[in-house]
Amino acid sequence: MHQLVLVRHGESAWNKENLFTGWTDVELSERGEEESRDAGRLMKEHGFVFDVAFTSLLKRAVKTLWIMLEQMDQMWIPEHKEWRLNERHYGALQGLNKAQTAEKYGDEQVKLWRRSYEVRPPALPEGDPRHPSFDPRYRSLPKELLPDTECLKDTVERVLPFWEQQAVPALREGKRLLIVAHGNSLRGLIKYLDQVSDDGIVGLEIPTGSPLVYQLDHDLKPIRHYYLKDLAQDG
Amino acid sequence: MHQLVLVRHGESAWNKENLFTGWTDVELSERGEEESRDAGRLMKEHGFVFDVAFTSLLKRAVKTLWIMLEQMDQMWIPEHKEWRLNERHYGALQGLNKAQTAEKYGDEQVKLWRRSYEVRPPALPEGDPRHPSFDPRYRSLPKELLPDTECLKDTVERVLPFWEQQAVPALREGKRLLIVAHGNSLRGLIKYLDQVSDDGIVGLEIPTGSPLVYQLDHDLKPIRHYYLKDLAQDG
Repeated sequence: MHQLVLVRHGESAWNKENLFTGWTDVELSERGEEESRDAGRLMKEHGFVFDVAFTSLLKRAVKTLWIMLEQMDQMWIPEHKEWRLNERHYGALQGLNKAQTAEKYGDEQVKLWRRSYEVRPPALPEGDPRHPSFDPRYRSLPKELLPDTECLKDTVERVLPFWEQQAVPALREGKRLLIVAHGNSLRGLIKYLDQVSDDGIVGLEIPTGSPLVYQLDHDLKPIRHYYLKDLAQDG
Repeated sequence: MHQLVLVRHGESAWNKENLFTGWTDVELSERGEEESRDAGRLMKEHGFVFDVAFTSLLKRAVKTLWIMLEQMDQMWIPEHKEWRLNERHYGALQGLNKAQTAEKYGDEQVKLWRRSYEVRPPALPEGDPRHPSFDPRYRSLPKELLPDTECLKDTVERVLPFWEQQAVPALREGKRLLIVAHGNSLRGLIKYLDQVSDDGIVGLEIPTGSPLVYQLDHDLKPIRHYYLKDLAQDG
């Protein structure tokens, strides 16, 4: 049996202010740090041990991972930071207030961008300083891979090569994986693992800072999954 | 020209209590965290940017790195944690008070262990729970590589393959390296880079939490090195 734990980063400064974040590199809020400490402590109490950790290139995920590793006293395990685990790119909406965006474009349009599987928000114009091609962390990537906007389907499709090329080989070596990422990149992994429909995945809410444990069989198919918090409450 | 910055981790809980630490995995003291923040801020003020970071498998070095990366807003760069950057293994002395050890073995003997290049402290007995073979972080290493005690010469010799196999290729690719390690593993790197004599390296003191900048020529030979703090005071 293989073990995999997925964690969505703790609350960020912009979650709190109701702004579209996407690839904007915002910090954890104080509450986000607290959620991360709680998550780390909970995993420690339940005896979770990891061989390798993966996270995104965004500091709210990296910091969540660091805080959890410190709580678990497993700061020495290898960490890999992968752009494919980044949050969905929210195009030109990044940095806008969700309420103001609804006023400007209409509720229905914003709902489509937020809750459809295949509708992309307006792209970041080329030359926009927010475009990932200006960010040194993406410098080594082929430009055609870098998004200027994404629908959820795009995010799912760019997350899957991470699963195939990095998570699967590590699991096959018997490694216990911790993946700390974002609402939509985790939706991508969960959609694939649990074969969730396009409509189903759009409506799936993943709580922040809450370890989601997957037990996988020999073929890496899920046997069961559960939020560790729920187990703790049951027990 | 190539750029390399070496940092010795901030003060640890055991530096403070005057215990032999070695591979014991002790935490930074509050002052050690503060030193790390100061070091990160100083590098940020001077515009230092890194492409990759290396540290040891010991949390006082990992935490120093994390605090510095956070201060510099470079949390996304790859981190590699390498056992070869660990502190010198202090054998059976690990965990003993330096003053008590001097009472037990005599000042001269302790001075030899601490200040000679080639005299090893007593080894950890096989089966001692402190032996690295019981520690999961070293599980994947061939047992013959794991020390049960080291003189400084041993430490220097096990650090050099890290330099050849990891630092040199990264520097040749044009990467700017940050290495956060320990008093004696850094002595190993400095001895090699600056061709310091055996006697000379034993007496070289490296301050904690103080970025030491190396500029290297095309052949990776040092052109100059300086503590960033001194530059800041001069300027």
